Amino acid sequence: MATSDSAPRARGEYAKSSQRRKEIISAAVEVFSESGFRDGTLRTVAERAGMTHAGMRHHFPTKVDLLEAVLKWREVETLERARLTHPIGIDVIRTWIASVAENTTRPALVELEAVLSAEAISADNPAHEYFNDLYRRAEDLLTRAFATMAERGELRAEIESEVAARLVLSTTLGLQSLWLRNRSIDVATELRIYTGVLLTVEL
Amino acid sequence: MATSDSAPRARGEYAKSSQRRKEIISAAVEVFSESGFRDGTLRTVAERAGMTHAGMRHHFPTKVDLLEAVLKWREVETLERARLTHPIGIDVIRTWIASVAENTTRPALVELEAVLSAEAISADNPAHEYFNDLYRRAEDLLTRAFATMAERGELRAEIESEVAARLVLSTTLGLQSLWLRNRSIDVATELRIYTGVLLTVEL
Repeated sequence: MATSDSAPRARGEYAKSSQRRKEIISAAVEVFSESGFRDGTLRTVAERAGMTHAGMRHHFPTKVDLLEAVLKWREVETLERARLTHPIGIDVIRTWIASVAENTTRPALVELEAVLSAEAISADNPAHEYFNDLYRRAEDLLTRAFATMAERGELRAEIESEVAARLVLSTTLGLQSLWLRNRSIDVATELRIYTGVLLTVEL
Repeated sequence: MATSDSAPRARGEYAKSSQRRKEIISAAVEVFSESGFRDGTLRTVAERAGMTHAGMRHHFPTKVDLLEAVLKWREVETLERARLTHPIGIDVIRTWIASVAENTTRPALVELEAVLSAEAISADNPAHEYFNDLYRRAEDLLTRAFATMAERGELRAEIESEVAARLVLSTTLGLQSLWLRNRSIDVATELRIYTGVLLTVEL
């Protein structure tokens, strides 16, 4: 039933609810990074967020709802940053490497992706299509960048754009996975060296 | 109590028990690949192996015992093959790539490693040290090979052996992970192209 003060109260409630959701997502990122999606429970996430299980289910009725919110958060944190600057050609590669360097300041994000994406290899995992699509888009982004560089003679002639793209993506994934085990690895520097070998220009 | 026929019967029992263990490990490889270590249950493994839960626990009392047996099996299946031929220098790299090519005929093995190793990033996972050690040994193997090649002028002068080793390892891990999602990727060919770029000789 509408009352004269319903609009301001709704806005206040909305802000509070939005803040609550953020706290839950932040707790879920921690729990899923530590225990994976399969083993991470809504109950643990609720405890970590300092609320009741029932209270949390008001915001996220199922674990899949929560997973979707976490993946959306991850998306905004990563791809969106790169998109904002609209780089082309070699600047896409530079932005990619800068973003990999920045990821090393946020191990939870890297670990979350490693664990969730490995689980999602299985076709019946709820994030299966999400990660397939994510890697496809990353490959497309890199392929377009290398194609532009090839036109400019910046990519070594014997390397196809698609192959260069897949190699940069796979090296990124592999290096991050090794780095999660051995933090002394300088992921961005090694990625820059390896990518540089494919090019005829300075990166 | 020893009887005159205990030895032959023990041998027969042993062979039967050994065969049983192989069947259980084979079922566990399937279950862990599909569901991971965390979610794969002893009960599912027993069902898959066509035996009772109690019968299986006679061979593997805990899930960690089973995990250890699976990892041991994986070890014999992969590193041992390379070791048998004692390659050095560029032949280590060729053997590595041949082994990656062979892995694509056994997706269960590749998926098992991807899923278990991602779970094992967490320091409290029972396979944590196993995978740390596995990747350390793989890096050492590749570093020694590239060091030999560097002495022979077969590695590009600006690339350090350690960096080349880590790049080959990370590209392998990343390419295999992408291949699990998209089987049209020719992992061995792409790995050969990328590794070739680091060298001054034909691979």
